[in-house]
Amino acid sequence: MRLAELSERSGVTTATIKYYLREGLLPPGERVTATQSEYREEHLRRLRLIRALVQVGRIPVATAREVLAAVEDEESDQLTRIGTAIAALPHPAPPRENDETVAAARTLAEELQRRLGWRVVPGNPAHQALVSALTALLRLGYPCTVEQLLPYGEAAGRLAGHEVALIGEFTSPTTQLEAAVALTVLYEPVLLSLRRLAQAETASQHLGHHP
Amino acid sequence: MRLAELSERSGVTTATIKYYLREGLLPPGERVTATQSEYREEHLRRLRLIRALVQVGRIPVATAREVLAAVEDEESDQLTRIGTAIAALPHPAPPRENDETVAAARTLAEELQRRLGWRVVPGNPAHQALVSALTALLRLGYPCTVEQLLPYGEAAGRLAGHEVALIGEFTSPTTQLEAAVALTVLYEPVLLSLRRLAQAETASQHLGHHP
Repeated sequence: MRLAELSERSGVTTATIKYYLREGLLPPGERVTATQSEYREEHLRRLRLIRALVQVGRIPVATAREVLAAVEDEESDQLTRIGTAIAALPHPAPPRENDETVAAARTLAEELQRRLGWRVVPGNPAHQALVSALTALLRLGYPCTVEQLLPYGEAAGRLAGHEVALIGEFTSPTTQLEAAVALTVLYEPVLLSLRRLAQAETASQHLGHHP
Repeated sequence: MRLAELSERSGVTTATIKYYLREGLLPPGERVTATQSEYREEHLRRLRLIRALVQVGRIPVATAREVLAAVEDEESDQLTRIGTAIAALPHPAPPRENDETVAAARTLAEELQRRLGWRVVPGNPAHQALVSALTALLRLGYPCTVEQLLPYGEAAGRLAGHEVALIGEFTSPTTQLEAAVALTVLYEPVLLSLRRLAQAETASQHLGHHP
């Protein structure tokens, strides 16, 4: 298909598509004349992923380029590519200081993952984000023990099982990879808004009787 | 206690405490001399909540003021105050357009909540945030059916039950309310980072065999 049809089918303006091409987010089409290129279904699919990252996830273009580079890296196996792409997504900053509260949060994060039967990978940005979140809870003196954290880990574990099954429905390794990245980003606001709705529902059931 | 001790015990600089006092986030202490006021344990606790909102949750000061106003509104019952305070927290914007995709997302959000046995409250900002997140999934053509969404709702429901129990451990209605708001904000990054860790763990178990 030509640029106009790619724009029509993706709902992305031709100016924005040209911007993504210049920024290296979208691979170039096959040049057919001096001024025209031919695009394929994979361009359409890639554009959908870029929109998920940039327009919905509000991920900076430079970061999106890193995520997409990991998706495209055909040297690595599927698992490494998924891991690298997801690790390249923005994460909350790791804790800046390194005092005894951070050390306690790190111990707590490791203990929690061991209890859940997960491997502890200190270099994973999600591990550092967890340490950061636990540091905030500990510093402010809010409840935060392994027992209180376990239900969150168990919920995340069940969802991950569901998500891997969902991603398995995509047929090719590349579409699976693209889906893994897109669903990671797109389901975050789904989960957070459902949590708030569940809180409202549960609070009205439990606290409604003790005004 | 005096301002210096409040600063010492809360870890918040006196300049920042004065700023929170000026902005009406922290209620004034009891004036003891022309230049000195006396602060109590409740100021310390409130300061902890303000830090959870402003410093950790990165919630704008004006929004934090609204949340705290709901916490303080002694005219309302406990349940209304919790609901109002949580609804005043920032939520993703509701969908801007109102086309057939938004209508489909709205139907999906309502059907999901009915399946979960929750009441549908269209005015709840979390409901609108859910519609917005589902609109993005539908627009981009990613999987998004009630069946695929149910596990997220069930996970959120289980966590809410745990959270209401956690909040019940706080003794007074005001500390319960403050804890409800703080834990809503502080546990979001815990949940999201655990989700990414669970994904990495599950992917390595399931996809590791099919590189």
